[in-house]
Amino acid sequence: MGPDPAVAAIRLAVRRCLADLPPGAVVVAACSGGADSLALAGALAFEAPRAGLRAAGVTIDHGLQDGSEERADAVVRIMADLGLDPSGSIAVTVDGPGGPENAARDARYSALDDAAHRLGAAAVLLGHTRDDQAETVLLGLARGSGARSLAGMPPVFRRPSVTGEANQGVLYLRPLLELDRGTTRRACEAMGLEPWDDPHNVDPSYARVRVRQEALPALEKTLGPGVTEALARTARMLRDDADALDELAAHAYTDLDAPEEGYGAAVRLDGLADLPRAVRTRVLRMAAITAGSPPGTLAAVHVEAVDRLVTAWHGQRHVDLPGGLRAVRRYGKLLFGPV
Amino acid sequence: MGPDPAVAAIRLAVRRCLADLPPGAVVVAACSGGADSLALAGALAFEAPRAGLRAAGVTIDHGLQDGSEERADAVVRIMADLGLDPSGSIAVTVDGPGGPENAARDARYSALDDAAHRLGAAAVLLGHTRDDQAETVLLGLARGSGARSLAGMPPVFRRPSVTGEANQGVLYLRPLLELDRGTTRRACEAMGLEPWDDPHNVDPSYARVRVRQEALPALEKTLGPGVTEALARTARMLRDDADALDELAAHAYTDLDAPEEGYGAAVRLDGLADLPRAVRTRVLRMAAITAGSPPGTLAAVHVEAVDRLVTAWHGQRHVDLPGGLRAVRRYGKLLFGPV
Repeated sequence: MGPDPAVAAIRLAVRRCLADLPPGAVVVAACSGGADSLALAGALAFEAPRAGLRAAGVTIDHGLQDGSEERADAVVRIMADLGLDPSGSIAVTVDGPGGPENAARDARYSALDDAAHRLGAAAVLLGHTRDDQAETVLLGLARGSGARSLAGMPPVFRRPSVTGEANQGVLYLRPLLELDRGTTRRACEAMGLEPWDDPHNVDPSYARVRVRQEALPALEKTLGPGVTEALARTARMLRDDADALDELAAHAYTDLDAPEEGYGAAVRLDGLADLPRAVRTRVLRMAAITAGSPPGTLAAVHVEAVDRLVTAWHGQRHVDLPGGLRAVRRYGKLLFGPV
Repeated sequence: MGPDPAVAAIRLAVRRCLADLPPGAVVVAACSGGADSLALAGALAFEAPRAGLRAAGVTIDHGLQDGSEERADAVVRIMADLGLDPSGSIAVTVDGPGGPENAARDARYSALDDAAHRLGAAAVLLGHTRDDQAETVLLGLARGSGARSLAGMPPVFRRPSVTGEANQGVLYLRPLLELDRGTTRRACEAMGLEPWDDPHNVDPSYARVRVRQEALPALEKTLGPGVTEALARTARMLRDDADALDELAAHAYTDLDAPEEGYGAAVRLDGLADLPRAVRTRVLRMAAITAGSPPGTLAAVHVEAVDRLVTAWHGQRHVDLPGGLRAVRRYGKLLFGPV
């Protein structure tokens, strides 16, 4: 008799994502103790030796709840019992900028980067599921900032090396992105693993929790039960779109880049107007960011105002941008400089 | 004292969209009698003469409800009172394919096309608002078919001429796409116009009504009150993206088109693999449709399966597609032909 179907599905997903890793490499499961990452850890422990790889496990203690240290120790014991070796926990301090969710994420990834470096790991596996992806797409929809914000979480990404060493940074993989939360929960049950339900995951002060508990059920009720899958598919398609358009824009920016003394960025106007709007607005955004406008604050409305300097110019003097910058037309160029 | 702010906003939006029409041209307001199109009709009646244009009005009697003929007559009287000349109603028969909502829309646009031709109109104005746009984006999200389905309703479009005459078809404009439903309702009140509330607009058997009454309020509650605006902005940005990528794909398809006896479409494999995925999948979709696959049935999953013939070929024999077609690799080409 084969394994439970849920266990088989998780293992298959993990096996596929291990396929391209070099023989003997160390692969780290990032595990919170929740059902998703616990199922991931269990599947990695099973698949890694069969693929000629070494499996390790890391859990992050964010120190945000009473008893978090004991929690982390318990997760380490579970991972060790599964055979992840080494298994360990890292305590982080969550005090960075951008709100508690962003700060916790930044601290978590930095710690995972460090752990991966220390273990010489080829990849870190993350347990995000299709449900997490759908939530991310809806959260991006609320920002209204285009394809990239709707593209959700990529299945594969690298974090640039923080140490400045000449390597490619840490490779992160999300093998469970096409599977749903029900599958990870059933897999845990079948593997005899008891997931920990983080009280933060039901705390409605988090936007993500509200999306999970209210927005997605309302969408499923009105649009049908395929919404989560549709959102995940949308994310995949829009990521392809954003990748293609960002690359076109990067080439166009290189072509039209025309440095000007005293300005942080300058782009030739003649070539700009001929670009499709989707590419032109991306070039303008790149130029503004190059000149020092903060990416998180520079919004679609700013870029649209700059675009009107190119396509609907009727004597506007300048457009003010976040970061104490302004865009002006001069010398046949669009110039981005200090106010 | 100037007009009510809501009236001023509607008039400004209509004035802007009339700006490029030729002097003396006839412009038709399509008016259901609801608040949105009634405010539109009122604003057109005011703005058209000031812009040197002639304003006409048309209402469509779908014949789907008891008393629809009297309803249509009442709307014609209101439009005539506003000064739209001529004002008239057209009765249509709703029996086309694709469900009652699609059939009603097809019948409505055909009748508007006919009216525009008969009146020699330069443009037909439609009363869709930002709220309609947000609903359309959410309905598109449920389909999960990428940027084009999230791009919502375009502010400007042409319907190809049905008569086959050598003209560009009818120009449709949506001047109210950046305004909300509250504004049209307040404008009607300020203009002394009494809108008709179509019972279909609160009938939860329509997906659009459920989106309006349940999904959007739930999203606003969880994500904040800016959701409608964010959805409309998303639609604008993704329409730009889809336009740029569709154009790139059309060029690529022309370059790679390599007709093959007995097949409805054929594309050279060598060039395909080098395209960015967002462009390649669009080329594959175009080829499948050229070969006869029905656009409404050909889904993202089909295109993804065909794409794997290009990028992840390990001996798959063929991919079956809607319309009794299949895609195969042969002669260094991807061939689309009958099963």
